[in-house]
Amino acid sequence: MNNFQFYSPTEFVFGRDTENEAGYYVKKHGGTNVLLHYGGGSAVRSGLIGRVTQSLESAGITCTALGGVKPNPRDTLVYEGIRICREKKIDFILAVGGGSVIDSSKAIAMGVPYDGDFWDFYSGRQPQAALPVATVLTIAAAGSEGSGDSVITKESGGLKRGAGSDLIRPRFSIMNPALTCTLPPYQTACGATDIMAHVFERYFTNTTEVEITDRLCEAVILTMVKETPRVIADPANYDARANIMWAGTVAHTNLVGVGREQDWNSHGIEHELSALYDCAHGAGLAVIMPAWMEFVYRHNVMRFAQAAVRVWGCQMNFEQPEQTAQEGIVRFRRFLRSIGMPLTFDELGAKAEDIPALVEKFGIGDGRTGGFVRLSAEDIADIYRIAVEPKLI
Amino acid sequence: MNNFQFYSPTEFVFGRDTENEAGYYVKKHGGTNVLLHYGGGSAVRSGLIGRVTQSLESAGITCTALGGVKPNPRDTLVYEGIRICREKKIDFILAVGGGSVIDSSKAIAMGVPYDGDFWDFYSGRQPQAALPVATVLTIAAAGSEGSGDSVITKESGGLKRGAGSDLIRPRFSIMNPALTCTLPPYQTACGATDIMAHVFERYFTNTTEVEITDRLCEAVILTMVKETPRVIADPANYDARANIMWAGTVAHTNLVGVGREQDWNSHGIEHELSALYDCAHGAGLAVIMPAWMEFVYRHNVMRFAQAAVRVWGCQMNFEQPEQTAQEGIVRFRRFLRSIGMPLTFDELGAKAEDIPALVEKFGIGDGRTGGFVRLSAEDIADIYRIAVEPKLI
Repeated sequence: MNNFQFYSPTEFVFGRDTENEAGYYVKKHGGTNVLLHYGGGSAVRSGLIGRVTQSLESAGITCTALGGVKPNPRDTLVYEGIRICREKKIDFILAVGGGSVIDSSKAIAMGVPYDGDFWDFYSGRQPQAALPVATVLTIAAAGSEGSGDSVITKESGGLKRGAGSDLIRPRFSIMNPALTCTLPPYQTACGATDIMAHVFERYFTNTTEVEITDRLCEAVILTMVKETPRVIADPANYDARANIMWAGTVAHTNLVGVGREQDWNSHGIEHELSALYDCAHGAGLAVIMPAWMEFVYRHNVMRFAQAAVRVWGCQMNFEQPEQTAQEGIVRFRRFLRSIGMPLTFDELGAKAEDIPALVEKFGIGDGRTGGFVRLSAEDIADIYRIAVEPKLI
Repeated sequence: MNNFQFYSPTEFVFGRDTENEAGYYVKKHGGTNVLLHYGGGSAVRSGLIGRVTQSLESAGITCTALGGVKPNPRDTLVYEGIRICREKKIDFILAVGGGSVIDSSKAIAMGVPYDGDFWDFYSGRQPQAALPVATVLTIAAAGSEGSGDSVITKESGGLKRGAGSDLIRPRFSIMNPALTCTLPPYQTACGATDIMAHVFERYFTNTTEVEITDRLCEAVILTMVKETPRVIADPANYDARANIMWAGTVAHTNLVGVGREQDWNSHGIEHELSALYDCAHGAGLAVIMPAWMEFVYRHNVMRFAQAAVRVWGCQMNFEQPEQTAQEGIVRFRRFLRSIGMPLTFDELGAKAEDIPALVEKFGIGDGRTGGFVRLSAEDIADIYRIAVEPKLI
């Protein structure tokens, strides 16, 4: 196990009706003048924005609304948010929504006290300060409610890039699983895929002697394998929604990934797809992550066999472990198929002829990525090609 | 799943040589005038106290030492600590040791700003303020380095009682597994038993639909089952020590227990043993917890069968699930035996004739405890009697 530092100071408030406590928690965490950041019409129509606003106002908190966050959140709205926060002297940002809204809020939070362009933080610079951010979560997926991460897309040019800092870990996150019960099956499945991918990005590692984090990773995946089909079949199942929602948070605070090298190539490779085609991140991951597995599993057959046995319930083939490793990948794809996810470029609406452009945009040049297997531009092209026509399916 | 609130703001600094960063982290968390609280001679002889003191002084921090914490830490030293802190205007308490030292530090931290007797907090009162506490951990066991809990023994009368508040969650915990490599096998096994007990106290619940926390609980137990025999055989195995150390923290931040009723009767029943005989808490748990299981498993045979299958690798007996449940308890006892733990009153040095006095001191009267099965005084006596002569062994 490697040395590590782990700091997850977010206060999680979980369960039915908890959104009505938004005002109490903003006050507790020092907010007096709040930017209420959200997405499209459904949060307004459902009455959620109204309930949260009422809770804030009852607590004597001033409130400025900024809606309009889109999936794959854009830099353009971030600039607007920064301008509003400065103008109104906002001291706290409350994100009401899923990962896109939260990530947009985090970008605004870093941008407000910074003299330069906030995009610097999505190009490798570390922030020195940020406004406090908190969330009322409406989608179990990105894990942004408990993480120090944010991903933003540059409108001009479609660059999709990430930033990370403990400064943008939410102060609190209000998580009412009932709010996710109206999410349609397709978006639910995209979220579930994202959660599982967050775990697998950490699971496939070259660090040895990491039993505790291996087992914690497997715990999250096993939960998703049990609970996801239940919410696809019955979207209003509160308990299954609750298990998925907490699994999604645990998957991405980094508790399950400490002390080990992580990969994250599937996320990087997928980001080019959702940036180019504006597809759902989870759907892109369903296409890319098994393709990545198919490309890399020979690097450590026993680790893939371990996942196959412990997570997918495969019988170990002791004579030919590679068969077991392969079967695990096949079962992962079958699971994704069973919850309605695409598995190929074609099913996603991506085009094989775009592969050179996708690789070009990934921008690795003659270098290599980090991670479980360090990938060259040609490797990345191979992974996209596997996603066009998978074998282990 | 039940509604819950989860807040674990401790900054964990984990790995080799991290104790040398104590000064940096005290400063970062606002300490300037520190009470350095520790136990017996080994921390001094090993040079650890010297290294930590040097780190603090290099960071310009004033330091007052208070050693002498004993296992099952006493109220008498807590009173002395409170007096010293007030006299020296201490603003931060750094515990260097295991659960006893940390729990003593937490008691002092609550006592300093309180006008009354600190024992009030161990009799049900909630504190309104506390000095900040942090730790340099030397034993993987109590999980106190990441919890808001503390257990103290009243010297006169031998009452052993717990307190809990988010105010006493450590600000940071420095965790170097190498510091635990000199711990003898018996104490190591006691610590491992305590860690497993912290999980089982949460695992056996009447709350349904808690797959994510079930799986997280199982992840910790599975890790302990793999790693504990390795450190018993080879105490200096850093990697096995590291897995156990992080498992011990995860077991008790309450991450694996949120949203579910918990039990904690085994801890309560054990506390009377360690209070009376001054035995190691972990050794007492090895005697009591399987006896408790033997007493209660019929309350939910399928939950015990689940543990047997998922944790102990038993084959499910679908015709007679009770057989599987029983086998799980037998395997737990065999595991405890294999790491050198006592399983009976006799092996612990406890006496059957003390049972009435133990029950009397437990102090339940005509009432019942809470938890998985609500126990009467007679039930508790039965559990002690099972521990005298277990059947599922």
